[in-house]
Amino acid sequence: MTQNIYDDPGFFAGYSQLGRSMKGLDGAEEWPALRALLPRLDGMNVIDLGCGYGWFCRWAREQGAATVLGLDVSEKMLAQAQASSADPAITYAKADLEELALPEANFDLAYSSLAFHYIVDLAGLLKQIHRALRPGSSLIFSIEHPIYMASQHPAWVTDAAGRKTWPVDSYQQEGPRITNWLANGVIKQHRTIGTLLNLLISTGFAIAHVEEWGPTDEQVAACPELAEERERPMMLLVSAHR
Amino acid sequence: MTQNIYDDPGFFAGYSQLGRSMKGLDGAEEWPALRALLPRLDGMNVIDLGCGYGWFCRWAREQGAATVLGLDVSEKMLAQAQASSADPAITYAKADLEELALPEANFDLAYSSLAFHYIVDLAGLLKQIHRALRPGSSLIFSIEHPIYMASQHPAWVTDAAGRKTWPVDSYQQEGPRITNWLANGVIKQHRTIGTLLNLLISTGFAIAHVEEWGPTDEQVAACPELAEERERPMMLLVSAHR
Repeated sequence: MTQNIYDDPGFFAGYSQLGRSMKGLDGAEEWPALRALLPRLDGMNVIDLGCGYGWFCRWAREQGAATVLGLDVSEKMLAQAQASSADPAITYAKADLEELALPEANFDLAYSSLAFHYIVDLAGLLKQIHRALRPGSSLIFSIEHPIYMASQHPAWVTDAAGRKTWPVDSYQQEGPRITNWLANGVIKQHRTIGTLLNLLISTGFAIAHVEEWGPTDEQVAACPELAEERERPMMLLVSAHR
Repeated sequence: MTQNIYDDPGFFAGYSQLGRSMKGLDGAEEWPALRALLPRLDGMNVIDLGCGYGWFCRWAREQGAATVLGLDVSEKMLAQAQASSADPAITYAKADLEELALPEANFDLAYSSLAFHYIVDLAGLLKQIHRALRPGSSLIFSIEHPIYMASQHPAWVTDAAGRKTWPVDSYQQEGPRITNWLANGVIKQHRTIGTLLNLLISTGFAIAHVEEWGPTDEQVAACPELAEERERPMMLLVSAHR
């Protein structure tokens, strides 16, 4: 069972105030880069693993997706997602991504935004996704970058000369990382990039694109504090073909 | 023209004292992991890009390779390689990997150890390698990990609490990194992992395996100072199929 931190009242209150919660996809700095990896969605059956408030599900329908299935472990987020749209072609359902059972060869696109780093049995989940996708389709996802989460103390460090750098340690030590982000005791699962990519490959996916997101010049001009996202990779965006 | 730092007298003197220079493949900690990615070499035509003293070329012949072509920019290293073996099936030749022209569909395996991070026009080199490989063959290489080389000051940092970590900054700023390793002014080319993998994919390679090398328990027991190589990734090993 995945830790359902999203239904923790404090976490939920904090999360609901984030730009990506209030403004939707356009409130997420990496969205333009992730969107650029997506195929045309016309007529597609799309699944969103970790759909949250359903922003992507609704966008996918606007882009012409035939059906969208949004899965999430958080009842609070699903309730808001359901309240935001009466579109009968979108189905929101509560699901633990650790114990998913999906219909075979049913989807044309699997999408997931910043959810996979919570998953303990990622091999099992990828197997389910691969089985649920039709041949020729894609899995496109974002995940916290292993360099962002590896350290036992993941916070900017100022060295003796006053230079600000991001600390990396414990990189080869895969497994849980407990952080206090919006709530205490948020559990993420650290894996190396190699492990992640090799899991995809051994599941049967072909790696199509790997992007370590960083802000564009325009994004930094509009929001100068984004500049630090150029210093160390925070998110990994991956496109894989089935 | 690649910087030929290997023929700098000070660099050469230092390099020739390294374990990997004196003991050959067994003096390189990552060799067992890199070797595990190699196919059986019987009857193969092998090319080694950046062959140095020729340790891999001679090993490949011992493993049954039909012919081995070892290329390097360093005349001093090629002279030692040539002096180490009279095997007529091994050809050592001076070549600038930036300006390579290889015969088409000629090789069954392209191998390179810790050379690609010196290359400015890696896209051009990969295109040459892809063209020179037969369909169904592999490119297997090691390269300095982008996390190891990204920082403007790539050296262990001790934070305010006394914790030792590896600094990451300037990650998205691709291009030259000048370090003083064995000699002053060694120029390496920083690319993100995403850029490296996407270059391979756009050249026509399929990513088969990505490994961020770290020492085994046995290696750390035999050589305790290797433990720090678990803290941050120093080398990236990649297997790609043509």
